[in-house]
Amino acid sequence: MPILVMKFGGTSVATLDRIRRATKRVGVEVAKGYDVIVIVSAMSGKTNELVNWVGETSPLYDAREYDAVVSSGENVTAGLMALTLQEMDVPARSWQGWQVPVQTTAAHASARIEAIPTDNLLGKFDEGMRVAVVAGFQGVSSEGRITTLGRGGSDTTAVAFAAAFNAERCDIYTDVDGIYTTDPRIADKARKLDRIAFEEMLELASLGAKVLQTRSVELAMRYKVRLRVLSSFEEQSDEAGTLVCDEEDVMENRPVSGIAYSRDEAKMTLVSVADRPGIAAAIFGPLAEASVNVDMIIQNIADDGRTDMTFSCPTDQVLRAETALNAAKDRGELNFRGLVADTDVAKISAVGIGMRSQSGVAAKMFETLSNEGINIKVIATSEIKISVLVDRKYMELAVQSLHDAFELEKLG
Amino acid sequence: MPILVMKFGGTSVATLDRIRRATKRVGVEVAKGYDVIVIVSAMSGKTNELVNWVGETSPLYDAREYDAVVSSGENVTAGLMALTLQEMDVPARSWQGWQVPVQTTAAHASARIEAIPTDNLLGKFDEGMRVAVVAGFQGVSSEGRITTLGRGGSDTTAVAFAAAFNAERCDIYTDVDGIYTTDPRIADKARKLDRIAFEEMLELASLGAKVLQTRSVELAMRYKVRLRVLSSFEEQSDEAGTLVCDEEDVMENRPVSGIAYSRDEAKMTLVSVADRPGIAAAIFGPLAEASVNVDMIIQNIADDGRTDMTFSCPTDQVLRAETALNAAKDRGELNFRGLVADTDVAKISAVGIGMRSQSGVAAKMFETLSNEGINIKVIATSEIKISVLVDRKYMELAVQSLHDAFELEKLG
Repeated sequence: MPILVMKFGGTSVATLDRIRRATKRVGVEVAKGYDVIVIVSAMSGKTNELVNWVGETSPLYDAREYDAVVSSGENVTAGLMALTLQEMDVPARSWQGWQVPVQTTAAHASARIEAIPTDNLLGKFDEGMRVAVVAGFQGVSSEGRITTLGRGGSDTTAVAFAAAFNAERCDIYTDVDGIYTTDPRIADKARKLDRIAFEEMLELASLGAKVLQTRSVELAMRYKVRLRVLSSFEEQSDEAGTLVCDEEDVMENRPVSGIAYSRDEAKMTLVSVADRPGIAAAIFGPLAEASVNVDMIIQNIADDGRTDMTFSCPTDQVLRAETALNAAKDRGELNFRGLVADTDVAKISAVGIGMRSQSGVAAKMFETLSNEGINIKVIATSEIKISVLVDRKYMELAVQSLHDAFELEKLG
Repeated sequence: MPILVMKFGGTSVATLDRIRRATKRVGVEVAKGYDVIVIVSAMSGKTNELVNWVGETSPLYDAREYDAVVSSGENVTAGLMALTLQEMDVPARSWQGWQVPVQTTAAHASARIEAIPTDNLLGKFDEGMRVAVVAGFQGVSSEGRITTLGRGGSDTTAVAFAAAFNAERCDIYTDVDGIYTTDPRIADKARKLDRIAFEEMLELASLGAKVLQTRSVELAMRYKVRLRVLSSFEEQSDEAGTLVCDEEDVMENRPVSGIAYSRDEAKMTLVSVADRPGIAAAIFGPLAEASVNVDMIIQNIADDGRTDMTFSCPTDQVLRAETALNAAKDRGELNFRGLVADTDVAKISAVGIGMRSQSGVAAKMFETLSNEGINIKVIATSEIKISVLVDRKYMELAVQSLHDAFELEKLG
């Protein structure tokens, strides 16, 4: 029988009632003839409670014990959903990560899945099991210790199972009903997309549209897993939600698919650094060592052998960045006159695979912002994305005007 | 290094603060030079919450899923205590049942431990680990599924580890400070015993002194594990609590060590049954099939080939007993004139290994009750126990007067 993977997030299994509701959705797919692998998160709030206990017990905790503790929430949900399925006369059982086993690296608290042997589950499907309820977010290292995949890791578990079992589709049930052209809380013309390409979803996920864990989208792209995001709180048809799929399967011909934003981006400028070969390495080496996530980088035109270097990073990493750069200066590895941090900015991005083939997208973006009197502070582009930093007070206006300019209300 | 097993019950690890307090006790033993195996229960209330969720989800639940769900509480405590130990600079790690592995039968929800291989833990002790924190109450079946040992099972886990690792002692930390000559809530002259024999403890445990799971005492007796019961809420010396040990190690020469009682015992009488060979089997066969726990049995003197048969069983099994006996009558396998249930009784027992060598204990017990005007309804005796059923209203009086008569206030 064809296999379907269904994943339910924490809000979808927050209470016994919600577990029952989610289970009914599983029953619908079983009735269609699928063997189903369900991936469950912990009941919402449970993981946070456990994480807090660990932090209170040991601020610099042993990540192996962290994993042993916080993985327990998923085990509870998996067992409860298996029982609910049995109550509906659907043959089902729960599987913890080590039982499958979900083999991962030993990088505790942020492990990566290395392999998912299929024998155990396929054997049970052959014996008549119709649903395997698997505890998401967790696995087991080669040393036999429990690992977790990092927050949002259950998405990745789901996609990895879909890839390993060659599932027909991987349905991610969550508390939103799909991927939108932008955040509906900011632009009421936002439209739900029927389809979105993996590459676009990756840019949106990493830009702060936190519907799917980035890693899960990468994995889906690599293994060509058809990924669907849909709401567990609405009646669903086969066409519900948003399908994240291959570029070729996105029928519409659109230059831009979505406008993303991030308000937690800061702009930092190193004033008057020597413009010499190796200067970029001298700056960004120490930042990387200090685990600063540098996003956009621009270098001004050199003047008298000196230049300004501007980059962006998350607001909460500004202090760390300053410390690292000043230390490099003190060590004589780097020379600059000043370091200016502007934490009052926002990043706005237009994302779309259509940019590859259609020109004029950047020009239209800059013109639109200019018409609204919004000054662009930094620009960065990739093949399918154009990002700009603007003053934070213009964030909503920028999103709305770009959404209008690219006529995104006509999508979906 | 010598190995010590320490077990902390749910109330001893109910909060992070209490876990810290329990962990300090562990630290004291580590400082003395012991390698320590700690067995932990779930934080109090957690297991009940999980059990209730399972019951609400599926009244006739699959015990394998029940085990997968309810075992998670112990995993949390084990990880948190390992972290607390690490904060105290004690090398420690947590172990879940399947990691040790604690091999059990597949009788889910009431599994029995079959083996505890010592290689994994001993290897880590050799590498410098000083404390292994093991999740109690759980194990793994030969099919790789999680099992649990039944309520109170962490006591059994502790004793089984003490036996497997040939531990110097197994300390059970709980919310009482030892085993008493009787319930201090009923008799204020009750005294804590310094030592008690395994056989005595077994009788007391099964009679309702619910400090230790019966199975754990059986195991300790079989493997000669020195078992100590003490409070986790008091400063402890090496002599604290009560040592449960071999008969030879109980120095005192006392006929009676404790007075136990149970208020949940009912007396049932089959009136006028035929006094023929096989009649006992005809009565107690159906009761056993209906899982009625028959305790005391007495048969009156036959008169004209007919007799009355009286037995006792837990109050909440009376209905089941009546149904089973009436069904046997309907099938023609049993004939009796009437069936009388008296649920207004209590069982009082005097327990002591000294009874084996000292006569007159029964006579003194009956005389004492008679002097108080308490009528004895049923008597049953074993080698080290005399039990009587009396009207429940006399329960406290009976316990107190027997405690006085055997001068138990002089013990401890």
